[in-house]
Amino acid sequence: MITSLRLKLPTWVPAEIQRARTCDTDTKKISLAVRLSAKNVGEKSGGPFGAAVFARGGELVSAGVNCVVGQHCFAAHAEVMALMLAQRRLRVSRLCDAPGAPYVLASSAQPCAMCVGALAWSGISTLLFGARRRDVQALAGFDEGPVAADWESELAERGIHVRGGILRQRAAAVLREYAASGGILY
Amino acid sequence: MITSLRLKLPTWVPAEIQRARTCDTDTKKISLAVRLSAKNVGEKSGGPFGAAVFARGGELVSAGVNCVVGQHCFAAHAEVMALMLAQRRLRVSRLCDAPGAPYVLASSAQPCAMCVGALAWSGISTLLFGARRRDVQALAGFDEGPVAADWESELAERGIHVRGGILRQRAAAVLREYAASGGILY
Repeated sequence: MITSLRLKLPTWVPAEIQRARTCDTDTKKISLAVRLSAKNVGEKSGGPFGAAVFARGGELVSAGVNCVVGQHCFAAHAEVMALMLAQRRLRVSRLCDAPGAPYVLASSAQPCAMCVGALAWSGISTLLFGARRRDVQALAGFDEGPVAADWESELAERGIHVRGGILRQRAAAVLREYAASGGILY
Repeated sequence: MITSLRLKLPTWVPAEIQRARTCDTDTKKISLAVRLSAKNVGEKSGGPFGAAVFARGGELVSAGVNCVVGQHCFAAHAEVMALMLAQRRLRVSRLCDAPGAPYVLASSAQPCAMCVGALAWSGISTLLFGARRRDVQALAGFDEGPVAADWESELAERGIHVRGGILRQRAAAVLREYAASGGILY
């Protein structure tokens, strides 16, 4: 019986985020998330999804990419990886309790059912995303799962502001490229 | 910047599951999950939730308890911990791909929004649970998050059979005890 596990981002991540210490606009934040998603496809290290957590002034706190297959972990979505790493770094189980709040999560694509639930518990104040649900489903063939119909207002009720469709075309292009390259669907 | 993290169950877990190598009925499976939830409250190692994954013959594959606060990890719900540990042990990112399928997850309580999404990706075939959503909300004061209204049929469409309310009174008693002891809500 095992009682612990380690989750790791791909080895190329630190070099990739070196140049992105501060992203002071929504577009710069999503640009980094999309760049991570594209690199994850290029490096064949996982699905076509990237995410990052930023503190109040736009300082980068953590990054995440999808590493479900490589890490043998269904939960290793980009958003969950970035949020877990931010919390571990800041030693809190809700980001709103850390100095530097409010925190923003930027994701290259609209979150799936699991990630929408995760966001509700994460302690972030803003979710930014690029590609929309229909891009993810139509272009890359992924199932987004049982998302609540009113997920945006459910998050709003919990103090989380949502803004989607930022750099949508660039984000969607990565999904298209992944599908064209025969990427695994899971 | 950190790029990896370790998630660990409380140190008392291995001794607690020593006697439960095989649970060949739904009731025995939930009984173990509820026992884990009660012990987690008694040991003050996390929220009042326990879970376990079982292979086809009822063999115990992994166990989980809520360790959100202790692990500084919003995602460390009992169900997610048990599922992640099962996948790591079996070296698959979907349990249906492992020998021993179909797999069952037994949880002491109805899953929250994040865990419902997680179940859809986990590769299990059956979800069993004890306490119902209203017990969790009314007795322990936890928010279950933005769960899709038709979550059971959404899971059924993905091949996951759901059976809830097993040993409900025993499971609900643990929630009541947690609330009475002034346990943290998060």
